[in-house]
Amino acid sequence: MKKKNKWLTVLFCVVLCNIAYSQNNTDYSRANWLIKAENFKPKLSETIIQPAGIVKMVKDDASFQGWKAEPVSSVETIYKTSFKKINSVIVDFGNHYTGYFNFKLGVLQGTADGPVRFRLTCGEVPSELAIPFDPYTGGISRAWLQDEVVTIMDMPTTYTLERRVACRYVKIELLASSPYFDFNISDIQFKAISSVNTVPDALANSSEQIIKDIDKVGLNTLKECMQTVYEDGPKRDRRLWIGDLFLESLANNYSFKNYDLTRRCLYLLAGLSGDEGYLVGTVFETPKPHAQAGQYLFDYCLLYNVALKEYVAATNDLETANDLWPLAKRQLDIITKYVQPNGLLDYEKANAEWWLFFDWKEGLNKQAALQGLSIYALQQTYELAKLLNRQGELEDVPGLIEQMKEASRKELYNPTSRLFESGKDKQISYASQIWMILGGVLSKEESQQTLKALVNTEKALTPGGPYLYHYFIQALINSGMNKEAKSSLIGYWGGMVKKGADTFWEVYDPKNDLLSPYGFYPVNSYCHAWSCTPVYFIRKYPQIFQ
Amino acid sequence: MKKKNKWLTVLFCVVLCNIAYSQNNTDYSRANWLIKAENFKPKLSETIIQPAGIVKMVKDDASFQGWKAEPVSSVETIYKTSFKKINSVIVDFGNHYTGYFNFKLGVLQGTADGPVRFRLTCGEVPSELAIPFDPYTGGISRAWLQDEVVTIMDMPTTYTLERRVACRYVKIELLASSPYFDFNISDIQFKAISSVNTVPDALANSSEQIIKDIDKVGLNTLKECMQTVYEDGPKRDRRLWIGDLFLESLANNYSFKNYDLTRRCLYLLAGLSGDEGYLVGTVFETPKPHAQAGQYLFDYCLLYNVALKEYVAATNDLETANDLWPLAKRQLDIITKYVQPNGLLDYEKANAEWWLFFDWKEGLNKQAALQGLSIYALQQTYELAKLLNRQGELEDVPGLIEQMKEASRKELYNPTSRLFESGKDKQISYASQIWMILGGVLSKEESQQTLKALVNTEKALTPGGPYLYHYFIQALINSGMNKEAKSSLIGYWGGMVKKGADTFWEVYDPKNDLLSPYGFYPVNSYCHAWSCTPVYFIRKYPQIFQ
Repeated sequence: MKKKNKWLTVLFCVVLCNIAYSQNNTDYSRANWLIKAENFKPKLSETIIQPAGIVKMVKDDASFQGWKAEPVSSVETIYKTSFKKINSVIVDFGNHYTGYFNFKLGVLQGTADGPVRFRLTCGEVPSELAIPFDPYTGGISRAWLQDEVVTIMDMPTTYTLERRVACRYVKIELLASSPYFDFNISDIQFKAISSVNTVPDALANSSEQIIKDIDKVGLNTLKECMQTVYEDGPKRDRRLWIGDLFLESLANNYSFKNYDLTRRCLYLLAGLSGDEGYLVGTVFETPKPHAQAGQYLFDYCLLYNVALKEYVAATNDLETANDLWPLAKRQLDIITKYVQPNGLLDYEKANAEWWLFFDWKEGLNKQAALQGLSIYALQQTYELAKLLNRQGELEDVPGLIEQMKEASRKELYNPTSRLFESGKDKQISYASQIWMILGGVLSKEESQQTLKALVNTEKALTPGGPYLYHYFIQALINSGMNKEAKSSLIGYWGGMVKKGADTFWEVYDPKNDLLSPYGFYPVNSYCHAWSCTPVYFIRKYPQIFQ
Repeated sequence: MKKKNKWLTVLFCVVLCNIAYSQNNTDYSRANWLIKAENFKPKLSETIIQPAGIVKMVKDDASFQGWKAEPVSSVETIYKTSFKKINSVIVDFGNHYTGYFNFKLGVLQGTADGPVRFRLTCGEVPSELAIPFDPYTGGISRAWLQDEVVTIMDMPTTYTLERRVACRYVKIELLASSPYFDFNISDIQFKAISSVNTVPDALANSSEQIIKDIDKVGLNTLKECMQTVYEDGPKRDRRLWIGDLFLESLANNYSFKNYDLTRRCLYLLAGLSGDEGYLVGTVFETPKPHAQAGQYLFDYCLLYNVALKEYVAATNDLETANDLWPLAKRQLDIITKYVQPNGLLDYEKANAEWWLFFDWKEGLNKQAALQGLSIYALQQTYELAKLLNRQGELEDVPGLIEQMKEASRKELYNPTSRLFESGKDKQISYASQIWMILGGVLSKEESQQTLKALVNTEKALTPGGPYLYHYFIQALINSGMNKEAKSSLIGYWGGMVKKGADTFWEVYDPKNDLLSPYGFYPVNSYCHAWSCTPVYFIRKYPQIFQ
């Protein structure tokens, strides 16, 4: 996800609107939370990966983005050959890995009398090794693309690319060498890193193969994103976002069970929350922990509470939950600030003052989704309070939930079409229905009617990517539409698997392989946290999926 | 200097021809010599250099290679400005330095949400910052050119270019950044390294300004090349060659007096000499000390002895000299192997079996130069023997010298023209006259006649570069032509100074700024050891130059 620049407005708002939140307490708590975040920083495990072989990328209309990797030879073949003759080669590590690429350089003839230079291009999917990166038309930094030019002054030596990369394939291209000696490349390796050090339970043997495959790819995605934080993507953006944390921690609860990582991330976000007590949507670990200035996301602040609740439910770590409780409670003020007397949120105002994310989807009106998600967050935070025996501190919340639900039905629900309509143009979208259902605004039966109507509404705005698709599956399950949940999961994530995914992609539109929110599809992340959630569904609901 | 591939022939020859040299002794000695080389490895001193300012390169026919650096602003100006606006800048450090380039990156607006990428181009002379490096037409590795593409993942940070570079100018070009934050560059520095840690005596106050200037540039050249060995050039080739060592150690004897570095280099070359006891012309320090396979240079092997003699003369370090004496004595076998009954060396055979360097000069016939240099080396080695009181071990040498001198006069000297003629085509060259004079084949008066005739011989092949020019100056001095020595030194090295040299160049033809033995003049070394010798002449012969 990229940044949005509303932070000045937000800053203005939070300064004006809040007097109840004590600055001194916040400073003290944040400093402590940051220390705890540091204490729970995991030690990364390292695994040395050998190449699976040498491949070439060939054009193939039937393959994802039009390119497929075709085996050429074993890697040993190139070890025995002058690299000046080979000149360019693509190494396939057989799976997606995050970490450090290295190889040996040895003299075959003569003495190395000058430096050699390579371009090393690391790619998660075949197209990154086949498509020229320039001219670059993307809207985010060109340097996210993992092509590096390196000069090696001496040999024999072992060269390690300093940049941490995330990839399955590495292209090695010789750009310069001396005519007075010859050399080879050997011992190509990848030092893969991850904070995962457990093996999750196997699925039921009787599970369909496609479910097993989806689960495997999901686990791989999750493992790759689990570094010293839950990263959104190990290739890009390599940082902690609340939205990704939420979905990753859900999947982790049902697989690797590395709860310390969740705890670290909850603390890190808490420690880097803003002066007014609102969470910042994304934070960085280096050079020292810091938040991205002004990245206040309405929906992400609230989902933090749900992530915390799910963490406590999985671990019963009441100490952490009580420690972070004031922060969670504080996030609810974001809702109450915008609730109008009629129970509807002031969408225009919220939209002007906050970044409302929900999905990558051009033209999506987020009024109904915002209303639904807010109700959902109030409910989940109230559940958290009950776990902590603190529901007394939220005595107004049950009433508020009811009021907001009623307003949703009254103002946004069309009983004829059975669909929620969002904004002045009464836009029909998956996002609106999903969040109203997750907010429990409709009964189970009504939810089913809504979802059935939705899929038959041609003009309905579909999910822009895996992130919202996750909530769609959850809405189906909550509505008791288990068959549809399964077929949707298989249809969507299974679609990626069938197209050769080793890890699930940041962006996936079954009808458009080249979709990119950044204007240049090779810069998309092809191992993305928020796409890993089949792991959660398959394992939390075995009766549906296994 | 680049490699020449005659090593198979040489190997064959040395295996067949030599039985007197004991392999076991050699192995033992070499191992010990290498240990001593390591023990005398100097600790490099570090100096932090601040930029002198920002410059731009402008086309100017009157300047060296058609480019000059024109001041633009102070460096502080760019520190205050968004580097995204600046985009490209050339930093001038005011002088030539060898070491590590670094700068700080700081966020001006927003939060760094993606990597930045730069091309850093380091140049010794303005043209390297002005001329495109591609398409590259050079015959040696393109990677010698000091342009690196670097990706920096986080900021604020201090970035240090890992590659050791040698330059005065650094161009910083922004290749990629994120549109969502702004940043600046500040605290640009250069950590200059050298093994020089002494300040040489000042010249006589009354010295001409041009002499002072030449001396200063010469000292700078020498200092830059004095690293953990006497490098030939800190930009390229960054290694120890016997020819450069000889000239650098001469200059060092009269300036920085870092005798330990000379001792280290003499031992390093000794430790890496070939199995048959002959020195290899060039050696590398990393990854571990090793010689360049097959680089046997007839003239360089013999000049090692002269370097050793000059070292002993300067230091009276008899222990080192006695330790290395067997090796020095061994080098004389190279001469005796090729001396024919008539006292002339078998040039054709030597030329077939060895690399005869002498100069970078297309078409140069080296017969006379080889004869002259061999006589010179015999004399100098005999002088060394006398310093060690070992002349008894060289009892045949004085006779051999006389025999070879006589043959030179009889077979190669034209008493009418007073010039030495080399090869079947009776080629007239500076190289031939220089080495015959240094060998003492002619009387002082005759030498003067020869040198006077030489400069009036239009067809005479002139020196190809500073290396042979050094011996030309020495020949003039040895012939008592002090005035001509001074005017030649001022004319040649002063020519570089007048063209803006901060350090003396590897290649210099007053009539052709673009000359390159490598087919691409930006890859020439513009700080080259063998060009530093005005330091030696000016300081050894103050009565002539100061």
